[in-house]
Amino acid sequence: MIDQKEPDNPVSAAVDPKEMRAVVLTGFGGLNKLKVTKKPMPEPQRGEVKIRVKACGLNFLDLMVRQGNIDNPPKTPLVPGFECSGIVESVGENTKGFEIGDRVMAFVNYNAWAEVVCTPLDFVYKIPDDMTFSEAAAFSMNFVTAYMMLFEVANLREGMSVLVHSAGGAVGLAVAQLCSTVPNVTVFGTASPFKHEAIKHSVTHVFDRNIDYVPEVKKISPDGVDIVLDCLCGENTGKSLTLLKPMGTYILYGSSNMVTGETKSFFSFAKSWWQVEKVNPIKLYEENKVIAGFSLLNLLFKQGGCNQVKTAVQKLLSLYDQKKIKPVVDSLWALEEVKEAMQRIHDRGNIGKLILDVEKSPTPLMANDSTETSEAGEEEEEQEEDNDNKERMPFIQ
Amino acid sequence: MIDQKEPDNPVSAAVDPKEMRAVVLTGFGGLNKLKVTKKPMPEPQRGEVKIRVKACGLNFLDLMVRQGNIDNPPKTPLVPGFECSGIVESVGENTKGFEIGDRVMAFVNYNAWAEVVCTPLDFVYKIPDDMTFSEAAAFSMNFVTAYMMLFEVANLREGMSVLVHSAGGAVGLAVAQLCSTVPNVTVFGTASPFKHEAIKHSVTHVFDRNIDYVPEVKKISPDGVDIVLDCLCGENTGKSLTLLKPMGTYILYGSSNMVTGETKSFFSFAKSWWQVEKVNPIKLYEENKVIAGFSLLNLLFKQGGCNQVKTAVQKLLSLYDQKKIKPVVDSLWALEEVKEAMQRIHDRGNIGKLILDVEKSPTPLMANDSTETSEAGEEEEEQEEDNDNKERMPFIQ
Repeated sequence: MIDQKEPDNPVSAAVDPKEMRAVVLTGFGGLNKLKVTKKPMPEPQRGEVKIRVKACGLNFLDLMVRQGNIDNPPKTPLVPGFECSGIVESVGENTKGFEIGDRVMAFVNYNAWAEVVCTPLDFVYKIPDDMTFSEAAAFSMNFVTAYMMLFEVANLREGMSVLVHSAGGAVGLAVAQLCSTVPNVTVFGTASPFKHEAIKHSVTHVFDRNIDYVPEVKKISPDGVDIVLDCLCGENTGKSLTLLKPMGTYILYGSSNMVTGETKSFFSFAKSWWQVEKVNPIKLYEENKVIAGFSLLNLLFKQGGCNQVKTAVQKLLSLYDQKKIKPVVDSLWALEEVKEAMQRIHDRGNIGKLILDVEKSPTPLMANDSTETSEAGEEEEEQEEDNDNKERMPFIQ
Repeated sequence: MIDQKEPDNPVSAAVDPKEMRAVVLTGFGGLNKLKVTKKPMPEPQRGEVKIRVKACGLNFLDLMVRQGNIDNPPKTPLVPGFECSGIVESVGENTKGFEIGDRVMAFVNYNAWAEVVCTPLDFVYKIPDDMTFSEAAAFSMNFVTAYMMLFEVANLREGMSVLVHSAGGAVGLAVAQLCSTVPNVTVFGTASPFKHEAIKHSVTHVFDRNIDYVPEVKKISPDGVDIVLDCLCGENTGKSLTLLKPMGTYILYGSSNMVTGETKSFFSFAKSWWQVEKVNPIKLYEENKVIAGFSLLNLLFKQGGCNQVKTAVQKLLSLYDQKKIKPVVDSLWALEEVKEAMQRIHDRGNIGKLILDVEKSPTPLMANDSTETSEAGEEEEEQEEDNDNKERMPFIQ
């Protein structure tokens, strides 16, 4: 499954122990702001674990980071990425429980897309022997998000119904798998039509993401649904609240509608904030509804929620051991292919998770050098590097 | 505990089987809009149970109904009251499960404050032999509200913390009792100072309702609380959200701040609606917070939630049998004393539930005929009936 390194590959020929390769975001903007460069090798501080990275997860949120379209964006240049898997290479002081050679997955507050990552042990989890590194990198953010939303925020129980957007995405598939662990749960999903065949066994009903799903859901379930998981934001908030049954829960966990392909005029985060429909608590009172937001990264890195997350990870690993859940990997990409990977997730071409495979060599460029299929925020006038705009085929697992 | 009827009491001398006594609200407004009059005896329709009422619950919501300060108020004249207990006197067709003589408690969509009530069997529950009728009338709305908020909306678990306003009120005491069924739950309560001594064993920390509780809670729990139960509305929404821990839940279940004692200028429901601070879902996303509303009456009578409520009642009756919960009755009042009872709940003089005891005779009027202690919406110029404005002492259980 993992590409063999070629011994003469110039990328992997770097052996300076004080350096490592990493994806760097040089400034907020289009795909051309991403480069693979050498960075100083990080060393673990007290309480940190140093991981030789094998695979990194790519999330829609990474596109928003690239555009600077998040609250309080950090300073650039930065190394993006919030999750990875790999092997413990060394440990700092006070890192009880981890040893060199342990196979692990980890949350990282940026800096995941690199050959080596150091992160506090609270964010590191040992992985089962039969879990591949790609699976592990596809596991942490998406399954924990799905689990905590369904079971901690919304209290999913037997007989309930769930609506999830981007049902073919990594969170959507995780939601569907977790719903199948509870008896008699109906899953409504929206997805691009070409994914319907692939996901028809994981969701009960699937709708075209380009049509209005509200009347479609109501045709099947006139009373609405118990849980709506919304990664789109914007007008979906009001529509979703309409669809909720009494005692139902709406959870906003992303805002991918705020990512745009327009070249110059990104929606700013501040503008998006004001455009979202606000909710009157008295309306919730009258209608017996629950509205929630869930951001795993804020919980982990701003709000000290690592113990709550740890509990969720333990339950998820138990479900994995019981073969009740299994991450779906869409495709593997070399670090150098991060732009193509981002383009694919922007175009919603993926079914499951996109993985940056640190040991993978870039697939040779194709003769066709067009990238005009879509614009994931590319700034056209800055096409400095020709090679980077040539098209590569995804390496489908 | 229950006053003996005096044989020559003119009120209970009415024996016309086609009539019953009931409290009638003649129009929206002050206390003087309430009268006790004769009404035609209701008969059970198909699926309904006819109950000879022994006791009725009085809730803060009844004050809002009296003022017309609710969404879509019904037409007057009407008989107020949403809950009662009593004995099944007859049953309509298709009322399997109930027999004449059963001791029951019931939810009623208005019309509870009467000698006889008919209501669909879905809203009627048999009560344990050792539960008094007063306890039963104090049980249904408040314990079900407390239970569903804590365990179905908010998912209360070991080690969590809960803030409840009006901790000496009937819901507040129910919340405290239910919290004590879960290990290691901290309850913060607000209440008038004179109640602190009485409720100090049911809540962990109690604050004066007239001071800002936010810094007081933060002194004890700098991270905030897991669950806020708000029956006040208004500025409390924003303050409560501030106090929530990440993954915490705020539940609005009433809006008693909207009840005012001003004689002429009630807040209208519409005005209150706009004055409440609206919540941006993106803020919930960033802060990992949950905001919910809970209205048991809407769930029961507008949203078809009687099965969900039935499940909650069964669990609560089981807790009652285990002696883990027990309704606290503040005082018993004759139907004719409904104004004094309403004045007492308006003045927040009660600790626990106010009960209208249908078989109780009015306590003799006191020499002091002043009602100037406070104004529960009394319209002063309409003091038509002198007797009704004289003061009675509450019958404390």
